[in-house]
Formats: sequence, C-alpha cells, structure tokens
Amino acid sequence: VFSDGSVWPSVRVEEAWRDGLDAIAITDHIEYKPHKADVSTNHVRSYELAESAAEALGILLVKSAEITRGEPPGHWNALFLTELDSLGTNDYRVAVKSAAEQGAFIFWNHPGWKQPFNQPVWYAEQAEVYERGWLHGAEVVNGDEYNALVHKWCLEKNLTMLGNSDAHQPIALDYDSPLGEHRPVTLVFAREKSVAAIKEALLARRTAVYTQNLLVGKEEFLQPLFQGSIEVRTPRLTIKNKDRVWLQVFNRAPLNFELERRQNLREVTIPAKVTLHAGKTSLISVTGRGAGVTGERELVLPFQVTNLKVAPTQGLSVGLKAQITFKK
Amino acid sequence: VFSDGSVWPSVRVEEAWRDGLDAIAITDHIEYKPHKADVSTNHVRSYELAESAAEALGILLVKSAEITRGEPPGHWNALFLTELDSLGTNDYRVAVKSAAEQGAFIFWNHPGWKQPFNQPVWYAEQAEVYERGWLHGAEVVNGDEYNALVHKWCLEKNLTMLGNSDAHQPIALDYDSPLGEHRPVTLVFAREKSVAAIKEALLARRTAVYTQNLLVGKEEFLQPLFQGSIEVRTPRLTIKNKDRVWLQVFNRAPLNFELERRQNLREVTIPAKVTLHAGKTSLISVTGRGAGVTGERELVLPFQVTNLKVAPTQGLSVGLKAQITFKK
Amino acid sequence: VFSDGSVWPSVRVEEAWRDGLDAIAITDHIEYKPHKADVSTNHVRSYELAESAAEALGILLVKSAEITRGEPPGHWNALFLTELDSLGTNDYRVAVKSAAEQGAFIFWNHPGWKQPFNQPVWYAEQAEVYERGWLHGAEVVNGDEYNALVHKWCLEKNLTMLGNSDAHQPIALDYDSPLGEHRPVTLVFAREKSVAAIKEALLARRTAVYTQNLLVGKEEFLQPLFQGSIEVRTPRLTIKNKDRVWLQVFNRAPLNFELERRQNLREVTIPAKVTLHAGKTSLISVTGRGAGVTGERELVLPFQVTNLKVAPTQGLSVGLKAQITFKK
Amino acid sequence: VFSDGSVWPSVRVEEAWRDGLDAIAITDHIEYKPHKADVSTNHVRSYELAESAAEALGILLVKSAEITRGEPPGHWNALFLTELDSLGTNDYRVAVKSAAEQGAFIFWNHPGWKQPFNQPVWYAEQAEVYERGWLHGAEVVNGDEYNALVHKWCLEKNLTMLGNSDAHQPIALDYDSPLGEHRPVTLVFAREKSVAAIKEALLARRTAVYTQNLLVGKEEFLQPLFQGSIEVRTPRLTIKNKDRVWLQVFNRAPLNFELERRQNLREVTIPAKVTLHAGKTSLISVTGRGAGVTGERELVLPFQVTNLKVAPTQGLSVGLKAQITFKK
Repeated sequence: VFSDGSVWPSVRVEEAWRDGLDAIAITDHIEYKPHKADVSTNHVRSYELAESAAEALGILLVKSAEITRGEPPGHWNALFLTELDSLGTNDYRVAVKSAAEQGAFIFWNHPGWKQPFNQPVWYAEQAEVYERGWLHGAEVVNGDEYNALVHKWCLEKNLTMLGNSDAHQPIALDYDSPLGEHRPVTLVFAREKSVAAIKEALLARRTAVYTQNLLVGKEEFLQPLFQGSIEVRTPRLTIKNKDRVWLQVFNRAPLNFELERRQNLREVTIPAKVTLHAGKTSLISVTGRGAGVTGERELVLPFQVTNLKVAPTQGLSVGLKAQITFKK
Repeated sequence: VFSDGSVWPSVRVEEAWRDGLDAIAITDHIEYKPHKADVSTNHVRSYELAESAAEALGILLVKSAEITRGEPPGHWNALFLTELDSLGTNDYRVAVKSAAEQGAFIFWNHPGWKQPFNQPVWYAEQAEVYERGWLHGAEVVNGDEYNALVHKWCLEKNLTMLGNSDAHQPIALDYDSPLGEHRPVTLVFAREKSVAAIKEALLARRTAVYTQNLLVGKEEFLQPLFQGSIEVRTPRLTIKNKDRVWLQVFNRAPLNFELERRQNLREVTIPAKVTLHAGKTSLISVTGRGAGVTGERELVLPFQVTNLKVAPTQGLSVGLKAQITFKK
Repeated sequence: VFSDGSVWPSVRVEEAWRDGLDAIAITDHIEYKPHKADVSTNHVRSYELAESAAEALGILLVKSAEITRGEPPGHWNALFLTELDSLGTNDYRVAVKSAAEQGAFIFWNHPGWKQPFNQPVWYAEQAEVYERGWLHGAEVVNGDEYNALVHKWCLEKNLTMLGNSDAHQPIALDYDSPLGEHRPVTLVFAREKSVAAIKEALLARRTAVYTQNLLVGKEEFLQPLFQGSIEVRTPRLTIKNKDRVWLQVFNRAPLNFELERRQNLREVTIPAKVTLHAGKTSLISVTGRGAGVTGERELVLPFQVTNLKVAPTQGLSVGLKAQITFKK
Repeated sequence: VFSDGSVWPSVRVEEAWRDGLDAIAITDHIEYKPHKADVSTNHVRSYELAESAAEALGILLVKSAEITRGEPPGHWNALFLTELDSLGTNDYRVAVKSAAEQGAFIFWNHPGWKQPFNQPVWYAEQAEVYERGWLHGAEVVNGDEYNALVHKWCLEKNLTMLGNSDAHQPIALDYDSPLGEHRPVTLVFAREKSVAAIKEALLARRTAVYTQNLLVGKEEFLQPLFQGSIEVRTPRLTIKNKDRVWLQVFNRAPLNFELERRQNLREVTIPAKVTLHAGKTSLISVTGRGAGVTGERELVLPFQVTNLKVAPTQGLSVGLKAQITFKK
C-alpha cells in the first residue's frame, strides 16, 4: 500500500512463506504514490514493516525499490540498496547511478510493457546504462508473460534472467492455485541461504526462471535440474526381437516435462512425444526393431524437453540411459 | 489497512466477487488504529475507497463500523450507518445509542472471545443494550468457530444469526480453497438485491449461517434450502419381496448433506447413515422387509440432516418421498 | 471380457452411472474373442449380464455388436440389434445387411485407425454400404482423438456424428479424472429417455460430440447448448466516455468456452480473447471508444467459440447481448 | 472374473502400478465361482493371466488363494502357494494344512464379517489353526474398515497385521481418488524387492497398515516412519521473555499427522493440537512462559500422533527437538 500495491507489507512475507520461497524484494515505486492522500510516502516503510514477519518465518528480505520513468527508459528495479531516499531525483541517470554506487543489482522490468505487440526496444537509454555496467539483468518473465526477445537479449548480452510476480494485489487474486496456477519465481543458485549469497549469485548470472509449466535458463543450470528431478526406475530392460517394453521414469519435480524425440535409433523405436508427469512415474515405450541386434547395450534415448527452454526456440537436450539386453 | 487489517479496501470487494457474494460490510474498528503512524485514521475512508470497485462489480457495500471496548461489553458491529464519526466517543452506550438512532443493525461480535473455554457470558451490559432494543443479532459463527451457546441465545432471545469472516488478512491466507475451505457467510433472505432489502431481512431475523460443511438456521429457512437442493431422480421404485433397490438423490448444493435415519419403517429398511454428496447423485438403498406388503405406497423416508442445525444439538428433520410398488 | 475387454459387463453399467450417462452400448466384437480359452463366446452374454445392473441404476442398455473386418472395410458398430448370431458370417456384406434388416443404426468406427497419419480413406466398401443406405454415422471422436476429416464427411454426407470411449479397460485407467480428463460421449437429442427415442434421434442425425474441452456438432444443436449454458448477469451497463466496465457472464456448463472476437464494434472495444470458465462467472471488459455515442443501445458482442466446432476449422458464432447507456 | 471379481486379472496389475504398489496377490476363492457358467474355473488362471503384465511393469505377483468356508471358521487367505488344486477339498483343515505344508503365509480375512456389530469371535476353529502354527496374520483393515479388536489380537497373539483392499470391482469404483480416498495397503518391511523377501518379512511380523489417514503398526515400525517423514526446518529458535516463535516442520509423507500435546513444559507453551499437513511445512507455535529461564536449552516437544496407532486407543509418542535460546 505504500506505493500502488493493495496489501500491507507483512502480507507479502506470509504469502512468500506459503509459496515456499526463500527470499523476496518489495520494490515500491519511488516516484509513484497513488495512496499518498492516506498513506505515508516514506520509501523505506515497506521494508521496515515487513522485517519482523520475515525474521519470524525465516524469509530473507531484500531492501529494494523501483525507479519508474516513462518509456524510454522504462522501469528499473534496484535490489540490495542501503538507502532509498537518494533515488528520488528527477534525473533517472542520477537515480540509477546512486543505486549502482550502493552496489545494487539493477534490472530492467517488463521490457515489453507499453511497446507495440509487447516487443521491447533497446533504446539508447538502455544502451547507455548497460555500457556503464549498471544493468545486470532483465525480466524474461513478468507476471504470466514470457518474452522471447528479452530471453534472447539475456543470452547475447550476458544479463541475469529474472521472473517476477509484479504482484500488486494479494497473490491469490492474481494466481488461481485451485486451477494449478502459480506465481513466477527466479531460481537463484546461491551458495547458501543469505542475502549476500543471493546477491553474489544474481550478479554472477546464476539463475533460471520458473513460470507455469515452463523453466527458462542456460543449459548449465537446467541440465542438472532435469537430471536431479528424474530417476529411471527400470534401468535394465530385456527386449526379445520386436517386443515392446517400458522404461519407467519418475519425475520428482512439480512440473511436467514435455519430451520430444530428437532422433531415431537403430536398435529401438521410442515415442515421438512423451510427458513425464509431475510427481509421478511415467512409461516410455521402447520397442525392438528386430534388426538383428543382440547382447547388452547401453542406449541413451535422445529427447528434447520442450518446456525447459535454453533459448527462445530450443528445448533442453537430454538423454535417458537404459541398459538393454537384446534377445532373439 | 485503515484499522488492523492488512489489505486495501478495494481488495475486499474483489475477493467478495470471486467468492460469489452479493454484499459485504467493512467494519473497521473506530477505536483501534494500529497503523496510524502511516495511514489516515479517517473512519469512512475504507468505505469511500471500496465504492467504485463495488459499483463496477455489482457488490453491495454497507457502511459499517466496529465499536470496540473491553470485555464486558465486548465488541459490536453496526451496519447501515449514515455517518461514523459520532461513534468515536469514550462511553460505549453513547456510541451504541448513536448507531441505534441512525437505524443501524447492531450485533455482538465473537461473543466467546477472551472468555474462559470460549463460553460467552451475558453480562449486564449485554442485557441493557438488548433491553433497550439496540441489539439485533450475534455471531453464531466467527471465522472458523461455531458457538453453540450463541446459537441457543439467538433462538431464545430472537436474535439474528450471523456468520462472518472477521478477515484481517487476504481471504486466501485465512481460508485455503485448494483444501476445500471457504469463509463463513450469512445467508440473508432478502426480497431483492439491494442494501435496503438486506437491512429489512436482517432486522426481521431472516438469515442462516453457512460455514465449512455446516448450515445453521431456523427450520423455516433450512427446510426449503434442503428441499430446493435435492431432487429424487428415481421417485418410483418396485420392490419384489426382500429385494434391495436404489433411490437416486441429486444434491445440487455445494455442501454434502449428512443424513441419519430418524426411525425404522415397517415396509422397508433404509440405511442408518447416508451422505448426499455435493453436486452429485447419491444412492440410498431401500430394501424390502418381506412383511407381506403389496401394492403401491407413498413412503416418506425419515432422516435427520445432522449438518443442518436447527438447534445446537438438533439436525433438520426431512422426509424423502418415494412411490414404491411392492410385489411378491 | 467376452471379447477383448477386461471388465465384467455389469462394470460398464456402474461406470456409466458414475459418469452421469443415460445410455450405453456394449459392442463386443463378433469375430474377435481372444479370451475364448477361458470365457464363453456367446455373443449376447454381455448384454444379458449387464441387464439387471442397468435396470437397478436406470441406465438404458442398447443391444449391440461390432462387425470387425480388415481394412477395408474396417470396423462397424451396429446398435439396436434384436439378435446377434446372424452377424457371425464370413462375408461382411451379409453381416451388415443382417444388421440393417434388423433396423440397426450402423456406424463406422475409428475410420482413421491403421491408416497413414490417421487419415481415413473412403474405400469402395464404404461407398457401397453408404449407397445402400446401411451407413448412418461415423466416429468423429474415438477415445481421445478427434478426426477432422470424419467431421467433414459427416457434414457432407449427412452422417450422424458419434464420440465413443472404445473402452477396453476400466474407464478410470483410460481417463484420469483427477487430472480433469473424461471419456468422450455422444450427446443424443432424444425426445424422451427411452431406447426407442435414442434410436429415432440417432437415425435423424440429432447428436453432438463432447470430448475433453471440445464440443462438435451442427450449429442448430450447439447454439442452444451455448445459449442455455450462459447467463449475462449484468445485462445493463453504463459507460461514461472511454470508461471500462465489465460484463459478467456465468457459464453453467462443465466445460470452458473459449471466445474470440469476430469483429470490432464502433461503439466499444471488446477483448480479442476471453475464456468463460466452467461453473464460474467470468468478466468481459467493455470499453467506451469515446466516439460521441450517447443514449441507450442494445449491442450484440460478436464472438466465435473456438472449442464449439460447427466445422473442422470453424467455431460457433455467438452474440452476447448487452443494453448499454452511453454518457459523456 | 475367475471367482467373484469383475475385472480381468491383468487389470489388477496395472491398477497396482498406478497406485505405486510393489507387490500384489490375487486371492480368488477356491470354492466360490459364481461366473462358472461363462468362465473357466481353473484356480491358477488368474495368476497365469496376470504374469506377463506383472513382469512388464515390475510388479511382484504372489501365487495365492482364498479358502472360503462358513463362519466359523470364516475365510482365510494363503499367500506364496506353489499349487492351488490341493486346497479344493471339503474339509477346511485339510485345505489349510495343505497350504501350511506348502510354506504359505496364512491369515484370517475380515474377521468381523457377518458377526454382530462387526465384532470378531475367536472360535475354537481359530484357536486350533493358531495353535497348530498355521495362522500367521489377520486383517486389521479390510476395505475401508479398521477393526480395533483384530488390532488388539495381533498385538497379544503376535500376528502379522494386514490391510487389504478386498477389491472385486475396478479399484476406482471402490476408492474415489478425486475425493482423496485410497485403497488400504500393507507396508511390508522387506530387505529387498523380491517375493522371497516379502514372505520373510510377513512371517517375521514386520508390517504396518495404511488406510485413509491412518497408519497402524508397532512402535518399532511407526517411529522411524514418522521420524523419516518429518524435518524440523527451524531447529534453532530464540525466545525473548514471553514471545511466541514458530517451529517449522515439513512433512514429506502423503498423510497428515495429527498431533496432540502429551504434557506441558516448564519453559514454553506448545499447542494442544497441531496438524502436520501432508507434503507441506506446518507451523507449531512455541511461546515463552517468562519463567526466568535463560540460556540455550535443547527441548523435546512431547506430542502423540493420534492417527499413528500403536494400539487401538494409543497414538505414537513422539518428540520434536528444538534448540532454544532464551533471552530476557
């Protein structure tokens, strides 16, 4: 409520705890205070009023603000600030510079916002901030929207990928959990659970973004996430001639993995598409091709996980290992 | 947020719309403003700030306040106020009187609150306000608690029964809809959808209370609710000797009805307990007793609906009609 | 189990009752009895063994069989047979003719089955049976597959559209209801609940097909289904200049309706896409264009329901009426 | 279908796989073959017809039968048989003896069945079979019924506790998974996944029974199950004077744990009742009593888990460890 939100700051902490998050940032606009007739405009009050709830529930709270200007240059979030008042200037360069000098992690919010067809533009202002080394990341996902062009830029320009709720209302009004919806989150691959470690990981670009049934990130982060989520429960199979057997694959992750076959194999036929259901064991048929193969082979079944995006149009390449004994 | 809540007033309207309500009252404490360091203490701001959302979504908004004193006399809600400032006095009698003179509907909130074992006490203060004709109702249900003694008093003293959320946080943090929980509501049997009609019905005691899997109210209101919710889909049955046949009963209500047999019948055996599942058709077995009955009879199967309470320990008595042809 | 299924015939009746069906046909293969080493091959036993359960639960049971030959001519189902033994001949023409002479309703099962890319072929055999007047319908939906070409043929050749489970296992193993799946069903627009009335409606082509989140049928059947399912809860709106107001539309059907705008209106802007959620009230924004319109107008908001298919690539055209008063 | 069931034997294997089971026994009645007019009465056909599905899905299949006589002596299941035909005798002693001589694990099915008020009776027949060493276990749970007296007998007479579905129909018709129901299962604490290891564990009485929201078993099995299911996520707490802090406890099990306080503590107040929700982290309030305690203490919060029954009226005693620093 201290900016254009509609909940008391401590609510954000309890919602975060309910959703299983480790850390949140409340990024009230510095310049936009539509409730000012009724509510204090003190920039740091949100942080102060959320602190005791955060401590009680073990949620890390990051002191943050949103620097809000027209488009260009658009809106920026600055995380890990030490003080917020110096951001309240007329010149956005001064505000961003102040944040940068505080060692903040600065990223571009919802770059496609108010742009035709939601396509972001890399204006001179972005270029300038980026070249000064002040721009560290961008929202690949804002609310329920994934932006392919921002994803591409993050890869090309080495920006940290972020996925944020941009929640103004209670989370439950924006994301309908009985329908299976959830808020987007940034997975931060930090070395420990501390504000400092999260900052280090964000500056080092070690993130992935999780939204609805989609994970977005670099191969180096998504590959271990996938491999750590699945378990082949029947690693040894025996196939007689053209028989069909089943590879059982358990998926411990909370999202389905949508697999597509990357190529055909000489020894066996595998399905063109398979879904590994969240929290369940799924079956992948493996059918002998009767091509005179005999003896034991280790096959790596080649799939692409289409909803684990390593680039805007590229799913994660994975292999599922199976030790198969072929018999006549 | 204008009292001890944690959401902006317009949130309450959207939550109400999502939950399918027709009307709400935001009853900020007059005397208790824990956010006053940051938020205006203007009593009527909640109402004003919720008005446009209410109009846009078609939710009726009732101008209201909570008169909050120690125990006794406890807390009172006054609905349908015309102005709120006169309630801000030191003497609770003056505040209640002012509300009464405005024609408000006044009820006792959470009577068991802070009393040993949650058992309310009818203090001299309650007696006085009641005898002056200022007390019209009481909360039989507050949050997730049903209070049997308040229920009894409402019947004995002719008070309107109310069930209220007493929500301070976002509704979704208090009631976990994925687990099947819902906020309590007061069903008001008004003649039309208007603030005036709701007031008339409340003053005339025409309500029932719906909480979790429980409906509380007088027989005259619960009987038509039950009868209007169920439909016997196989009203004609044929029983040969001791055969068992099935009465199919559809329950269009959103809550299960828990039925217990009230008495045995001479002609047929019916089950001791049956659940009529919400939104589904359930089966009630009807088994011939082979007692030499023949020909067509209209039987009224005698049950009590234990989760439709017409008194603290009494469920609604109902009869399910079946036209049964008995054959040898 | 009397053919290649895996449940006792009475199970089909109870499953049908659980799913809320009115009528079923058990269409065991005449020619294919893989369990014959253990189970009787009497064609009519399935019907006989399901009869008492059907009577007890009020499910209509249609005496039926599947005439199973290679492709061409493929598989045919014959419903409303009086006896089944005469179908057990080597010549499929004799079998189909016998069914036709019994007055059966005959349709082509899963026409795409075993054809390249699942595309059915209208072989000479189909042409012959069709021209003799023996072919009355075809499966637009078999199991979880909708076949666009069959849909087109049904429209061109005036065939009854059918959607069938083709269940062999317990229904719950084929359709995972906790995941929201349901078996396909044929909606038969019969004049009463009787076997005769269903037969009359099937022969008269009065059906639609319901599968997952899709309804397939002629405009004359889908239009009243849609209009009877929705209710505009705020039929009167007032728009000042360029304000945005909300049309509230309740959808009582068990499937979402996916709406797309068919054209733009001069007076107001309506969304390009809207989902009317099953069992819920959804909001459709209506925004004034400030084009100098004043006074009261009846507008018909033009949408297409993309998941109500009147042709393979054409959704049902619908209009939502709103009485709008425009103000400056 | 080979006895009084209504599915083909292979269905049981697929259902078991869907439910995540490791092993099943199909225990067709030896003496009761109501489908014999249509279906083979070969005792071993169920086993034979389920074998290939079991191998394909990795389900262990136990060769078994039910010895079915009047009451007394009631019905017995014999598992791990080598042949079934010798059980088809008129004298139940001969049948049980034959099973015993085959090394079978023999248990008493649904002991309360057809007894007044479902209370089992330990007839002379039971005593005899038990004293001969032929009776190894009994069904504490059959279908959806837990039997307290059988539970007591298992403890007193050192019988293996079993919980079995006794399914005749498709599992999904008996247990409504969308409503959260599941079939009862016997948890067998075997040393490996093999038929021999399961047999060894059953004979050694190493089981627990899981039904709906209830686990039944000896303390030695339930204690590690509970301790392995929960994780205290905030093992270190700091309490100032009478402050309230929160112990966060994650429950990885698929059932809620219902905790009741066993005794009061001198240092802190803990709640009388807490539910640890399945798959979620729950909060347990810990409130300082301001009794002058200072410094660091390891407290073991004493609860009883009422739905983990170690005896008919006794829940499992557990302690939740917390390292608490008390400050003034």
